[in-house]
Amino acid sequence: MNRLSLNQITTKSWSLPEAVAGCAEAGVEWIALWRDKVAEVGVDEAARLLDHHGVKVSSLCRGGFFTGVTPDGSPVDGVSETREAIDEAARLGTDVLVLVVGGVAGNDLAGSRQRVADAVGELAPYARDRGVRLGLEPLHPMQCAERSVLSTVDQALAIAREHPPEAVGVVVDEFHVWWDPHIEASIARARDRIAGFHVCDQLVPLTDTLMGRALPGDGPIDHRGLKACVEAAGYSGPIEVEVFNTELWARPGAEVLAEVISSYAEHVA
Amino acid sequence: MNRLSLNQITTKSWSLPEAVAGCAEAGVEWIALWRDKVAEVGVDEAARLLDHHGVKVSSLCRGGFFTGVTPDGSPVDGVSETREAIDEAARLGTDVLVLVVGGVAGNDLAGSRQRVADAVGELAPYARDRGVRLGLEPLHPMQCAERSVLSTVDQALAIAREHPPEAVGVVVDEFHVWWDPHIEASIARARDRIAGFHVCDQLVPLTDTLMGRALPGDGPIDHRGLKACVEAAGYSGPIEVEVFNTELWARPGAEVLAEVISSYAEHVA
Repeated sequence: MNRLSLNQITTKSWSLPEAVAGCAEAGVEWIALWRDKVAEVGVDEAARLLDHHGVKVSSLCRGGFFTGVTPDGSPVDGVSETREAIDEAARLGTDVLVLVVGGVAGNDLAGSRQRVADAVGELAPYARDRGVRLGLEPLHPMQCAERSVLSTVDQALAIAREHPPEAVGVVVDEFHVWWDPHIEASIARARDRIAGFHVCDQLVPLTDTLMGRALPGDGPIDHRGLKACVEAAGYSGPIEVEVFNTELWARPGAEVLAEVISSYAEHVA
Repeated sequence: MNRLSLNQITTKSWSLPEAVAGCAEAGVEWIALWRDKVAEVGVDEAARLLDHHGVKVSSLCRGGFFTGVTPDGSPVDGVSETREAIDEAARLGTDVLVLVVGGVAGNDLAGSRQRVADAVGELAPYARDRGVRLGLEPLHPMQCAERSVLSTVDQALAIAREHPPEAVGVVVDEFHVWWDPHIEASIARARDRIAGFHVCDQLVPLTDTLMGRALPGDGPIDHRGLKACVEAAGYSGPIEVEVFNTELWARPGAEVLAEVISSYAEHVA
């Protein structure tokens, strides 16, 4: 249980101070932070609260959007924003910055992927100098157009390998990759590149491309099987429970966290 | 333009007689039929109408569901139902029966895939004896849990290759596979196994996992690029325009077919 990390999106109704205090109270040693929640209190105050409560940061979410557009279609300078996010990660004391690399520009999928590889090349030395690892997170193919032209662990790994392991790794999120026919082999190949492991279940039927997640449970995802894969590959770091779910988000944070802990204990640990 | 086929789901408001007559009137030589629409008039009457109007059938949709459950969770004997569908395809004069293989039973993804391979092995000789080819259609990973444990062309190809090419092939549907980092190489490897090519676009943002399709146009899918791939692999058969889209389904069939023709001409042909 000491590997459990609350990804704070799961308790979206909680502010950062509430989430950090909530973890401390519940005995959860790790939390994954989101930049918008950090911004609400400021980086220094966030760092002070973490220190005060003795809660460690498994990752900061997120940098990326290197293909020039955000999901709502507005232009973005992903490289510049990610540089800020790297600085922020360092100040928050986490060594992982999760990257959502960006969707397809026009219908040029190959060109968009190249832009991602180029941006990672530009940022890797900057991140390494600050003790932060860029965590390339492949997202589910249903988010390819808007959010991530990286859809598989193999793709993320191919880009990561152009750089030192301490500068660029891959984040394995079950929701995004469980369906992949090569997932076990890909994770085995990832070895010391694995920078994070995120768990949750998929709702069936899957009616929403973003919010179709649930706490680990009786869904189609074999949590213990995938956890065994990342462990066999050598990963022994924190395991984030990260759930996008409107119903869960409407409930009190403490209640949700209690269920995070019990579902993790029952289906993952 | 003589390769264009109307997949009749695209003009869902039309009955089979309306769709067949509509194709004839618009000069569309091919149609892909759905079993529920065929059942409304009966197989013999459907065959008579096709013959009368001189419209050819590119494929019949669908057999499959070999993992024991339908998307709504009810039990199904996929092998037995697919045998009926093979007979129906033969009577309708098409040599392709599209297979939607079925989703994950429990959380046993590997076992579910094996059930699919076993079922195809059982049905392949039956299909070949009747001059019908089983068309394994990989579906988008977002449909893995409920509809198809085959998510990539490579997976479908691995099963197809256990059987003679005239008995089992693969159906390439852009919507399902455009995001695949190996799609060009997979199509090249598929060669004479390609039993069909389906085109449409993806809505951005993709808000619905089933209905998030559009007529070929300014979406993220590179239609001419993928068409060039299937042609380079040797496929010169009909090209189905297959669109699940609630708004399109609410409109008169003739109006929709006119747009099918113009979008195909502009973005695919």
